[in-house]
Amino acid sequence: MDVRFRKLAVFGVGLIGGSFAAALKQAGRVDRVVGVGRSRANLDRALELGVIDEIGSSAQAAAADADLIFLAVPVQQTPTVLEALAPHIEPQAVLTDGGSTKRDVIEAARQRLGDRLARFVPAHPIAGAELSGVEAATSELFRKRSVVITPLPETDAQARGRIEAAWAACGAHLVEMTPQRHDEVLAAVSHLPHALAFALVHMIARRSDATELFSFAGAGFRDFTRIASSSPEMWRDILIANRDVVLAELDDYRGRLAELAQHLQAGDADALEKLFAAARTARNDWLQRK
Amino acid sequence: MDVRFRKLAVFGVGLIGGSFAAALKQAGRVDRVVGVGRSRANLDRALELGVIDEIGSSAQAAAADADLIFLAVPVQQTPTVLEALAPHIEPQAVLTDGGSTKRDVIEAARQRLGDRLARFVPAHPIAGAELSGVEAATSELFRKRSVVITPLPETDAQARGRIEAAWAACGAHLVEMTPQRHDEVLAAVSHLPHALAFALVHMIARRSDATELFSFAGAGFRDFTRIASSSPEMWRDILIANRDVVLAELDDYRGRLAELAQHLQAGDADALEKLFAAARTARNDWLQRK
Repeated sequence: MDVRFRKLAVFGVGLIGGSFAAALKQAGRVDRVVGVGRSRANLDRALELGVIDEIGSSAQAAAADADLIFLAVPVQQTPTVLEALAPHIEPQAVLTDGGSTKRDVIEAARQRLGDRLARFVPAHPIAGAELSGVEAATSELFRKRSVVITPLPETDAQARGRIEAAWAACGAHLVEMTPQRHDEVLAAVSHLPHALAFALVHMIARRSDATELFSFAGAGFRDFTRIASSSPEMWRDILIANRDVVLAELDDYRGRLAELAQHLQAGDADALEKLFAAARTARNDWLQRK
Repeated sequence: MDVRFRKLAVFGVGLIGGSFAAALKQAGRVDRVVGVGRSRANLDRALELGVIDEIGSSAQAAAADADLIFLAVPVQQTPTVLEALAPHIEPQAVLTDGGSTKRDVIEAARQRLGDRLARFVPAHPIAGAELSGVEAATSELFRKRSVVITPLPETDAQARGRIEAAWAACGAHLVEMTPQRHDEVLAAVSHLPHALAFALVHMIARRSDATELFSFAGAGFRDFTRIASSSPEMWRDILIANRDVVLAELDDYRGRLAELAQHLQAGDADALEKLFAAARTARNDWLQRK
């Protein structure tokens, strides 16, 4: 669909919000971008970088005449942002978001969007980095990446079409899921690994010999812990928003570690090698399919 | 020290063994390299690549006239290799190894090297990759990397000097530690993370929806699990050789996960953010020091 927007309002001009704006600008699909956020310095930088054209002084000012609204705030802030925004959404506007969890965002939208709910198409781009802030934003972030959309029974078909076209214009390919399934899948392959990486670095950091330990950490440790340089606020919100599923994953994982400890205790070399070989094969097969 | 060797015998011509040979050749510090290993195909490839000059038909043949011997086999094979090698070590030869654990290698050496023990300088280069085999070997692997040496009370000063000079010629810088301390440090920053990555991939791989789950795994998952593409045999050996310390680390880590689960259960956003922020700061500080 040859979609075009007059005015995009981005709430949260960080890595995701900034990249969405930059990609739509790059593709020539948006005339003007207004950015809203908590950090004035970050918004000034976004203006300097040309990611946005204007700083919105309020939700109301940003929403005026906007025909596309993108929520890219840490998920815990969604209710507050929607509360301020809802009365000002134009009838023709369509909304999407970039939240890493979907059930909580949808619940917040249901409670606050009223008859605008049908114009909201929840989304989650499977892209990102341990970097944050508009400095890290790039028009290429979503290129060839999956964007999960989790439409609601109420979702308007035309709104959905326009949102899908906007994401497609960013270079992404769309995948539909239920909100519940989205939160389950992401808990396993994203939320749990982040929790594990944070926990490992924290465990080492608080030891009295942390500096010596870190000084012998090599490339394997660097890669394993890369996601522990992610935004603490964002990941706090994600884990709390999705905590029932994340707790179940943590529980399963702790069980797997107990199993591994048993093999080690028993000196069961065959069991260990079998487990490691199965993991390596699964990972290498996945990389080949990618 | 301007060290030079007439003949280097490498036992295990994989990533580490091949890179040691390639680096010493590149630096012009060795006249001839003979390689010994289990896989004829790998040795043929090492010959083709010019990493070795000759395939050793036996430990005896390889040791004949060798003035430098490098053990780069999975650590569990050290006793067997030393058993075959010990009677044939020339009096002037010096030995080192690349084993990722030191207490077990030293124990094997004590039992088998007899009066040649003084010529053995245990070492562990903190370098490597998830790749294995001679194809991955490069003369640059050890450049600017740390090599831990764990000399014994019996170690001969001249032997130590020659081995240190060999590693320095590979571009590495040397750090001395006790074998016990080495095994503790590496358990925390290397052995535990490998176990954790293997366990996560294995947990996901054995689920019925593994293919769908993997299809939504992004760059964070790829980096977090990179070390789960490491050699199953090598890591089986390392974890078993160092199992008392690795089990203690696993135990500590499982405690940290229990703590994290408690914070999540309680919805304690502050505790989570504090933990994540401390981890991020520690990691970023470490990267800056590197």
